[in-house]
Amino acid sequence: MHPETNLQSTSYKPISPAIIEQLQAIVGQKFVIYDDEEKLEPYSHDEVVGKKWAHLPDAVVKPRTAEEIAAIMQLANRERIPVTPRGAGSGLSGGAVPIYGGILLSLERMDKILEIDKQNMVIVVEPGVITNDINNQLATDGLFFAGYPMSVESCFIGGNVAENAGGGRAVKYGVTGRYIIGLEVVTPEGEIMQLGGKRVKDVVGYDLIHLMVGSEGTLGIFTKIYIKLLPLPAKKVDLLVLFPDIVAAIAIVPQIITYGKIIPTAIEFMDATAVELACRYLNEHFHSKKIGAMLLIEIDGNDEDQLEHEYEIIGNMCLEKGAIEVYVADNHTTQERVWALRRNVPEGIQAFYPAKSSEDLVVPIANIPVLLPQIADLAKKYDLVIPCFGHAGDGNIHSTLAKKPEMPMDKWQEIQEQVRLELYQMTLALGGTISGEHGIGNKRKQYLKMALDPTSIEIMKRIKAAFDPQRILNPGKIFE
Amino acid sequence: MHPETNLQSTSYKPISPAIIEQLQAIVGQKFVIYDDEEKLEPYSHDEVVGKKWAHLPDAVVKPRTAEEIAAIMQLANRERIPVTPRGAGSGLSGGAVPIYGGILLSLERMDKILEIDKQNMVIVVEPGVITNDINNQLATDGLFFAGYPMSVESCFIGGNVAENAGGGRAVKYGVTGRYIIGLEVVTPEGEIMQLGGKRVKDVVGYDLIHLMVGSEGTLGIFTKIYIKLLPLPAKKVDLLVLFPDIVAAIAIVPQIITYGKIIPTAIEFMDATAVELACRYLNEHFHSKKIGAMLLIEIDGNDEDQLEHEYEIIGNMCLEKGAIEVYVADNHTTQERVWALRRNVPEGIQAFYPAKSSEDLVVPIANIPVLLPQIADLAKKYDLVIPCFGHAGDGNIHSTLAKKPEMPMDKWQEIQEQVRLELYQMTLALGGTISGEHGIGNKRKQYLKMALDPTSIEIMKRIKAAFDPQRILNPGKIFE
Repeated sequence: MHPETNLQSTSYKPISPAIIEQLQAIVGQKFVIYDDEEKLEPYSHDEVVGKKWAHLPDAVVKPRTAEEIAAIMQLANRERIPVTPRGAGSGLSGGAVPIYGGILLSLERMDKILEIDKQNMVIVVEPGVITNDINNQLATDGLFFAGYPMSVESCFIGGNVAENAGGGRAVKYGVTGRYIIGLEVVTPEGEIMQLGGKRVKDVVGYDLIHLMVGSEGTLGIFTKIYIKLLPLPAKKVDLLVLFPDIVAAIAIVPQIITYGKIIPTAIEFMDATAVELACRYLNEHFHSKKIGAMLLIEIDGNDEDQLEHEYEIIGNMCLEKGAIEVYVADNHTTQERVWALRRNVPEGIQAFYPAKSSEDLVVPIANIPVLLPQIADLAKKYDLVIPCFGHAGDGNIHSTLAKKPEMPMDKWQEIQEQVRLELYQMTLALGGTISGEHGIGNKRKQYLKMALDPTSIEIMKRIKAAFDPQRILNPGKIFE
Repeated sequence: MHPETNLQSTSYKPISPAIIEQLQAIVGQKFVIYDDEEKLEPYSHDEVVGKKWAHLPDAVVKPRTAEEIAAIMQLANRERIPVTPRGAGSGLSGGAVPIYGGILLSLERMDKILEIDKQNMVIVVEPGVITNDINNQLATDGLFFAGYPMSVESCFIGGNVAENAGGGRAVKYGVTGRYIIGLEVVTPEGEIMQLGGKRVKDVVGYDLIHLMVGSEGTLGIFTKIYIKLLPLPAKKVDLLVLFPDIVAAIAIVPQIITYGKIIPTAIEFMDATAVELACRYLNEHFHSKKIGAMLLIEIDGNDEDQLEHEYEIIGNMCLEKGAIEVYVADNHTTQERVWALRRNVPEGIQAFYPAKSSEDLVVPIANIPVLLPQIADLAKKYDLVIPCFGHAGDGNIHSTLAKKPEMPMDKWQEIQEQVRLELYQMTLALGGTISGEHGIGNKRKQYLKMALDPTSIEIMKRIKAAFDPQRILNPGKIFE
């Protein structure tokens, strides 16, 4: 094949006092942090657990405008300084960690909702807006943004776009990228680029918008995001369904869609361990003792009778296929309670198994029941706990590799890579891949070769080089 | 700014008898056409009217497999021969015309439906499958592909993906790209690349799938297409609504979605001229004499009562806003009749105004009522007929510049470019762009600079160069 594109820069320059002065001149003195380990530390990691994944930046810079970011990137290009963009730091692949030091570009000050255009059903926001605030702001307008990452209360919309966040409503509404119809982007070379806008269709040139979506901060920095909104459904109903085992639970998923002809907003699942840990963490209790798996199914719509009709179909389907119990949550308080259970699975795992690695497997939906028993075998083989939960309706399984308390830390460190390798192999063999929504970042880059063919990787590297000839924007991510 | 990437090849080689022999060795003697103008002619144009847009290929090659295409591309790379891929030739921007001669790569023999996977709700097809055949094949399975280009009975699915075809159902279902979850692609250098598959989520590396979608055959040749299916709604209802004028008609569109909370499958519109020409062409008649505009609104769903409720809301909204009449089409025959009216607008125009240029403007929906009177003024200024019709729910307007019979052909040729320029200027000034679904191809490339900033164009050119270092795949398209 053609020669391999090299993305390593041989010579990043350290940040000199002169460069600090230039950065201060661009954003203002108080928005540059340097030489202060305590203040730099919070910017050295994301939500990936383990010191091995952390790295201190040399300086944190907090711009307020696209023009300031363009000036920073031009400076970084001239001086060959690595720049790592960062949103809320709630990522799960090390994407916002400045592994080569240099400048950490925090978007926390770019937190304005710029425009709500009801007529066109578009909201224009800066990247540092907390995702949840978008829908809070829109509630009275009868509109909503359909993205719903599980970290919705803390994550930034810019990070959602950079990772193409999925989350809890993707079965019906798709992932973040579906709603992004325009972007203002600062390129790695420090140019400001306008892509799309308020129009819903656009085939002029290549689709750079969706190339930027999910590019993990390696191709450009978003400074304005145009989001297509939907009319807010008047009502939603959640079903919490207990099953004796995971296979019975998952088997119901394609049935609901194909035979029931209902596309739920969400079909979330938790295996027995995930349920148990979340319950323990939240001090929740279920009467039934023999929960092997739990599904959380949400439907929404405008017509109450229609919704009732649909949840009866789904409930009956579940009971016919062996469900132990179906709870219906049709008011806000109960709905919050059942979703809190699902959202707090990671916290539950973290509380009782702090040494863990969150995985983000995805397989064709019909293969979930094949994969899960294989994961159970893997847990036995390596004497681990591997709770599985996630987005059943999308085939997206967050299986979390967790060390039992009695396993020595050395042993855990030693086996982790091998376990991940086997886990990825079995996922790929089923037509799946190694990340459905968390991204590759730093954590998974060594496994990229397993998931993509050499031609795809080479093309991606050439694209990276096309955007970033000096390799200064978020270096060391995605590619080895 | 950074130096401009040059996409011109200085030295395409002509096709020698030795190369013909090599092509015959790859695909078989009977699948290479050369030296026969009559047989080459059908491959010299698409649906863009005018000899100026046509060009004969030196040879037409009809491969059957990805491996054959890879071998052709490797040969073309070695010998520097331009290769233009072609589906059904139903495009509207000259994208499949071999403007530098060379090899015309026809995908007509790659016409197999490879797999229908009901459990995962995915169909795998070759690029030469006629789009309509996909849903015909799926009808008994209760599934469907939601793409619906107006040329559905003749176009190939490969062309739909290459152009990111929109069409008549995009309001609710989005455009073609939303359903493409996997592609097998032969790169311009002759490598076979596997992107995605049957999984619905995937954030491993850059989203090459959606970079390929809409790339107009300039970045690679699709050899397998994985399409996500939806459950086929049990019922649909069409409303044909007559309005006294276009502004009243268009004003209803955001109302239905925002206040009615109904997302119709389609909201198509036709202005008075478009209606009149289609009616004349089909020999259809309406009682009402004063039709200023017509909307065709389709809703679908599984619950008959719910649908009835929805179409009553929509119908009443229309009547309140001044509609003259609302016809309800709730059976297949009547629905076919109203859609035939809409689909035959271009044929109607073509029949009575053969000298024409089909445009494909798109604006934010709320700006349609601003743009349409400006277009009417433009028609007056240049003494043209400009019927407007298209996808109101997407802001996508097919305004067709048409020469009146009495205007001399010279004059028409002379003013056309200027009219298009003014039309594009007014569209861009309203936050719109110059193509919503037909593409840039050859026809609109000189206007690309108006619609995109220089940085975006430069990045796109670098991407083209990253895929196609020798500039042999579909040269002369999109970029000047």
